[in-house]
Amino acid sequence: MTMTKPTVLELAIDLINRDSITPEDKGCQERITEILEEVGFQAEYLPFEDVQNLWIRKGTQHPVVVFAGHTDVVPTGPVDCWSSPPFEATVKDGLLYGRGAADMKSSVAAFTLACREFVEKHPDHKGSLALLITSDEEGPSINGTVKVCEVLKQRQEHIDYCIVGEPTSSKAFGDTIKNGRRGSLTGTLTIKGKQGHVAYPEKVRNPIHLSAQAIADLSAQVWDNGNDYFPPTTFQISNYHSGTGATNVVPGTATVIFNFRFSTASTPESLKKTVHSILDKYHLDYDLDWVLGGEPFLTETGNLTKAIQQAILDTTGITAELNTVGGTSDGRFIAKICPQVIEFGPINASIHQLNEHIAVDDLEPLKEIYKKTLSNLLL
Amino acid sequence: MTMTKPTVLELAIDLINRDSITPEDKGCQERITEILEEVGFQAEYLPFEDVQNLWIRKGTQHPVVVFAGHTDVVPTGPVDCWSSPPFEATVKDGLLYGRGAADMKSSVAAFTLACREFVEKHPDHKGSLALLITSDEEGPSINGTVKVCEVLKQRQEHIDYCIVGEPTSSKAFGDTIKNGRRGSLTGTLTIKGKQGHVAYPEKVRNPIHLSAQAIADLSAQVWDNGNDYFPPTTFQISNYHSGTGATNVVPGTATVIFNFRFSTASTPESLKKTVHSILDKYHLDYDLDWVLGGEPFLTETGNLTKAIQQAILDTTGITAELNTVGGTSDGRFIAKICPQVIEFGPINASIHQLNEHIAVDDLEPLKEIYKKTLSNLLL
Ligand SMILES: [Zn+2]
Ligand SMILES: [Zn+2]
Repeated sequence: MTMTKPTVLELAIDLINRDSITPEDKGCQERITEILEEVGFQAEYLPFEDVQNLWIRKGTQHPVVVFAGHTDVVPTGPVDCWSSPPFEATVKDGLLYGRGAADMKSSVAAFTLACREFVEKHPDHKGSLALLITSDEEGPSINGTVKVCEVLKQRQEHIDYCIVGEPTSSKAFGDTIKNGRRGSLTGTLTIKGKQGHVAYPEKVRNPIHLSAQAIADLSAQVWDNGNDYFPPTTFQISNYHSGTGATNVVPGTATVIFNFRFSTASTPESLKKTVHSILDKYHLDYDLDWVLGGEPFLTETGNLTKAIQQAILDTTGITAELNTVGGTSDGRFIAKICPQVIEFGPINASIHQLNEHIAVDDLEPLKEIYKKTLSNLLL
Repeated sequence: MTMTKPTVLELAIDLINRDSITPEDKGCQERITEILEEVGFQAEYLPFEDVQNLWIRKGTQHPVVVFAGHTDVVPTGPVDCWSSPPFEATVKDGLLYGRGAADMKSSVAAFTLACREFVEKHPDHKGSLALLITSDEEGPSINGTVKVCEVLKQRQEHIDYCIVGEPTSSKAFGDTIKNGRRGSLTGTLTIKGKQGHVAYPEKVRNPIHLSAQAIADLSAQVWDNGNDYFPPTTFQISNYHSGTGATNVVPGTATVIFNFRFSTASTPESLKKTVHSILDKYHLDYDLDWVLGGEPFLTETGNLTKAIQQAILDTTGITAELNTVGGTSDGRFIAKICPQVIEFGPINASIHQLNEHIAVDDLEPLKEIYKKTLSNLLL
C-alpha cells in the first residue's frame, strides 16, 4: 500500500517516475486524490478527449483558495544525453533530477502535501481549499484548464484566490512571483507578388522587395511603453520564407509569421490595427491571419500577493519581487473566473532542458510557503 | 542511308526525335558532321566529362565566321501535358512541335544546311566557316562552350564573327538580334543573430529585424542607369529563408539569396562594394558568398550586326532591332575569344515550356538569313 503521508521528496519522485508526456497523466492525479481524500477532499475527474483533469475540493465556504498545476511534462529530448534516465528520479549532490522535477511535479507534490497538512492542523479554518490539475498545459491547452474553468463558471462555482505552481524563481528560490502574464498574438502574413525569371524583372512583382520597407517599419515600431506592471509590448518575426530554392526565379509570395507578447497597455485590436496601417501604407496585396494565443492577465498588489510574499519572507528570508515577464501559462484561463491569480514555484533555469532538476533543499520550504500562504488567507 | 541534303524541316525533325536532355547529345553532332564532311568540313570532337562538343571547320583563311549552338534540351515537364510526344516531332496546323523545336534544334539544322549550301554554291568564298556545338548549354555550362573556347584560345585559333542560334525573335520572326547579354552575379547572404524564445526578446538578436532596413535599402537601390546598349542593372532577391517553423522561436540566422543582372555600366566589383557598404552601414554580422554566373558581353554596331540585319531585311522585310535583355547564353564565353558575337534565331515564346514549337514557314527563311549573312561577310 502506498504511503498517504509521504515527504515532498518522496511524492515528487513518485510523480516524476510516471512518464506523463502531454497529454498523459499516468495516474498522477489518482495519486493526489488518494492523499487528499483521506482528509476530506472530494475529487471530480473532468476528462476532455485525451486530457485528464482533476478538480478536488474541500469545504463550501468563501474564500476559496485554489492551487493550480499540471501533471504533464514536455518530451525528454535525446535520452542518452541525460546524466540519469529522465523518468527515473535520481538524487545526486543535493539535486533531484528528472523530467518534471522543476516544471512542475515538485510544486504539485508540495501543494498537495501543504493542503493535507493544513487541513489536518487547522480543521476549523475559514473558507475552502481546492486543486485544479490538468495533463495538458505543455500541449495545445485546449482540453485542460480552460475547459475546467468553463465548467466551474457554468455551475457558478466561484474562486477567490489562485496560486499556480509554475517555476517562477529565477536566480534564488523565492525571488520571483508572477502576478500576471503578457498576452500572445500571432500573425501569419502572406505577401503576394508575381513569380517570374530574374532576367525579366519587368514581368515580375517581387514580394520580398515590395514588402521590405514595411517589414523594416514593423521591426522598428514601438507598440506601447508598457505600464507599472508590464514591460513594453514586444514584436518578433519568427519565420520569413520566400523563394523556390532556384536562384534565378523571383518568388510569387512571401510568408512572414510574427508574434506579439503584449502588455495590458495594448489590446489585440490596437496591435492588429497598427500592423494593417503599416502594411496598407505600402499598398501591399496580402492575406493576414491572426491567432490570439492568450490574453494578458494582471493581479494587482492585494491580499494574495501580500499573503504569499509574507510566506516566502518567513520561510526563506527573501523578499520576492512581482513581475509579469516570460511565456504564457494557464493563469490566463483561471484569471477569467478568479480575481486574484499569482504564480509561484521553484527555480526555472533547467525547465524543458536536459537534466531538469530541483534542489532537494527547496522541496520542504516550497511546501511550507504554500502552507503559510493558506494560513495567511484562511486563519 | 540517311540523306545528306535534307530540308531544314527534315533535319530539325531528325534532331528533335533524339531525346538529348542535357548533357546528352544522342548523335546529333554526328549527324551534323555527316552533312558537312561531304563538302569538306573537318570535324573535331572535344568531349569533356559527360559533355559532347563538336568543332567543325572548313578553310584556314580569315575572316572566320562561326555558328554556335547546342544540341541539348531542357527536360520535358509532364509528358502527358504535351499535345504530342515531346521527342516525336509533329507538324500540326503549320507548327512543328517538339522539345528543342525553338531552342534550338531548328537553328542548328538551319545553319548546318546554310553552311553546306553556301560552300557548294560559292566554292571560292573568302575566309573560313566553322560550327561550335555543345551538349551542355542548358545545364551547368562547365564542360561545354567555355572549354572549347579555352582549347581554341590555347592553339591561337582566332574567330572573327560568331552567330549564336538562340531563339531571339520576340513577337515576329526576325524582329530581334541580341548584340550582348547582361552579366549575372549571385550573392548568398547569411545574417547572424542569436536564437531564442519569443517571450524573452532581451535574450535574442533577431536577424530578420536586424537586417530589415538593409534589405529594404538593397531593394530600393539604383545600381546604375544602364548605357546606350544596356538597360539599368537589376537586383532581385530570389530566396529569403529564416525561421525554425515554430512560431515561438526567434531564428538565429537569415539566409538571403539575390541576383544581379548587370550591364557594362557596372562591374562585379562595383556591385559587391555597394552591397557591402549597405550591409556595413547597419553593423550587421554576416557571411556573403558570391558566384559570378557570367560576365556581360557587348558587340557594338559593326560588320556583323549590319550583315545579319541586311540578311533579315532581305529575307523577311523586317528591320531587326538590337537588344541585350534576357538571360545569359554561351555568347559570353565566345565573346572572350571573338570580337563580334551576336545571337539570332526563331521566336522564343514557347521555349522551355510544354508544346514547344516553331512555325514551319520560318524554317527555310531562317536558313536563308544565315546563308545571306555568310554572303554579306565572305563574298
Ligand atoms: Zn509548467
Ligand atoms: Zn538555347
